[in-house]
Amino acid sequence: MPMVKFPMAIRLGAAAAVVMALAACVAQSTSTDTDRTALMTQPMSIAKQGSFFVGGHDIHSDTLSTLPNYAASGTVTVDQMYVHYQIPVDAKRLPLTLIHGCCLTGKTWETTPDGRMGWDEYFVRKGYSTYVIDQSERGRSAANISEINSVKEGKSPPSQLPNVFAAAHEGAWTIFRFGPEYPKTWPGEQFPVEAQAELWNQMVPDWSASLPTPNPTVPALSKLAIRLGGTVLISHSQSGIYPFQAAALNTQDIAGIVAIEPGECPAASGDLTPYTKMPILVLFGDYVDLSARWAPRLKACRAFVDATNHAGGHAQLILLPDIGIHGNTHMMMQDRNNLDIADLILKWIDTHVGAKAS
Amino acid sequence: MPMVKFPMAIRLGAAAAVVMALAACVAQSTSTDTDRTALMTQPMSIAKQGSFFVGGHDIHSDTLSTLPNYAASGTVTVDQMYVHYQIPVDAKRLPLTLIHGCCLTGKTWETTPDGRMGWDEYFVRKGYSTYVIDQSERGRSAANISEINSVKEGKSPPSQLPNVFAAAHEGAWTIFRFGPEYPKTWPGEQFPVEAQAELWNQMVPDWSASLPTPNPTVPALSKLAIRLGGTVLISHSQSGIYPFQAAALNTQDIAGIVAIEPGECPAASGDLTPYTKMPILVLFGDYVDLSARWAPRLKACRAFVDATNHAGGHAQLILLPDIGIHGNTHMMMQDRNNLDIADLILKWIDTHVGAKAS
Repeated sequence: MPMVKFPMAIRLGAAAAVVMALAACVAQSTSTDTDRTALMTQPMSIAKQGSFFVGGHDIHSDTLSTLPNYAASGTVTVDQMYVHYQIPVDAKRLPLTLIHGCCLTGKTWETTPDGRMGWDEYFVRKGYSTYVIDQSERGRSAANISEINSVKEGKSPPSQLPNVFAAAHEGAWTIFRFGPEYPKTWPGEQFPVEAQAELWNQMVPDWSASLPTPNPTVPALSKLAIRLGGTVLISHSQSGIYPFQAAALNTQDIAGIVAIEPGECPAASGDLTPYTKMPILVLFGDYVDLSARWAPRLKACRAFVDATNHAGGHAQLILLPDIGIHGNTHMMMQDRNNLDIADLILKWIDTHVGAKAS
Repeated sequence: MPMVKFPMAIRLGAAAAVVMALAACVAQSTSTDTDRTALMTQPMSIAKQGSFFVGGHDIHSDTLSTLPNYAASGTVTVDQMYVHYQIPVDAKRLPLTLIHGCCLTGKTWETTPDGRMGWDEYFVRKGYSTYVIDQSERGRSAANISEINSVKEGKSPPSQLPNVFAAAHEGAWTIFRFGPEYPKTWPGEQFPVEAQAELWNQMVPDWSASLPTPNPTVPALSKLAIRLGGTVLISHSQSGIYPFQAAALNTQDIAGIVAIEPGECPAASGDLTPYTKMPILVLFGDYVDLSARWAPRLKACRAFVDATNHAGGHAQLILLPDIGIHGNTHMMMQDRNNLDIADLILKWIDTHVGAKAS
């Protein structure tokens, strides 16, 4: 990756300058509503689209099936990561990689539950190539079910079953900060709760607790970044730590990291060297201090950002209410103002990553 | 659905006329290679794209999780069907619904293992809207994992574990008719076996044996057809029976059925009335008679097609070698000549479905 330079406001870690710049961005978004409507309704011009896998390895198993029609023994591939991409005509140089969170898939970034445009399409319409992944062992990336059949056949004890879990609507409601408890909402919250059924439709079982550390998605993200010759890794929630772990493996071609409400930031007391090599934005929404789950995570991420800047890095943490954007939930890519948040992220990328890398 | 009329060749069930018409189509494809190259390299103009779910229902479970961070009890949604769509500018009236087979997901129709264009994109470039599904409990459509945790916690016996299986490379090789046994190939076979690793990457565990009959995908397909106000259901392999089962539930808005190597056709001795209501194409590739698995299925589908026509229907079965197209495997949407097969299907749809429905 070429040596990058950062503007003065970022070098200073000057919170005031950041707030001013982003407040200007938000104000500007109002004045460009007509432009956005035009952008969203005109045809998309796609140069290329498709999909592929990164990572994965073959394993032999004798418990692939308990059915007569399919052999129990043989080779299967596991831990690969599905990637779907779209490249617009005249794409900007740096593609964006979208990495979903817990109990979700790449669907996260597509049409919102109430039928509005998702970030995957909006980013493409704004000229960015997007690479949308399904985490290893989730969605279109195969899970390893050998242990299930092994237990079914009495070859292994039930304790060997994978730690696979599904997030219930009621619990997700609170974790996603739609309100204090299901089905109450926080005043002014922006998630389209009237369309919640379509969010519940997109939740899938999560196998991550059965996977090694780092999650196989992590080395796959590093491989993807290198394959693309540079990308901004945009994570969400559970996957928040993955781009940092990928950078710890190899900073090559990780041009920037945008962490949307990461479930975990790297420890402020750890080796921060990898994280000084690229601009980092950590973004949190509203109601965070009302959440016993999220308040300490925000605090830990603040400590990480401060420590990274102290170590010579270029990290920012933005709490949306601090810049005048209110009501955002943990699912901000699906909130009613999701495209305002998208614009804010793109503006940050253009300023701190894109312009430097071109 | 409006009353449809069928051309004389189809009314007669005249195999000779069908062979002549399709042979002409194949010959024509050679003369339009330049057109195809232009079509494939120019930008795609997409009016709209996105995704949604059809079907699904809520269940309560007390075994959603064995992990402290996620509640064991609550509501989850299962049996919903993920649908991703693309609508080109000036789309033809009838969209195509692409329904993958065993151990696969909607990825089936995307970029081929060796990196060529898949049918999903090609159909859109040819002017057809496409709706690509992930079968219920597969890919981006949630599986129900309650029983796994119930057994893990000792609340249910191991025999209650779901019948989930993974197809091994070695077995799939033979089932997909790449050759007589792994890794031998049939002479002249068209699958890009040098890129087989990317096919193995796209295979996922299959939960269908744990699902009720009909598979929840079946009523979801009927709902999708009605939501779209008409569609051609294009199935593959395991899903081959689903469009027929959907038609048996309700023929409304199932404008046509294209069954790519169906694992099962409806019984020729059963009530064929629903299948007389729409044009049907059943397509098989090469080497079928060399396969103990596929030869009887072809025979049964021939009997179904004959019986449907006898009952006043408009069904056709095409064995590709019979019209001069050789070497196709069970994965013909990924074979080297996949776009020739796509053109053949589109020609059939335009002649027997599209022109009648517009």
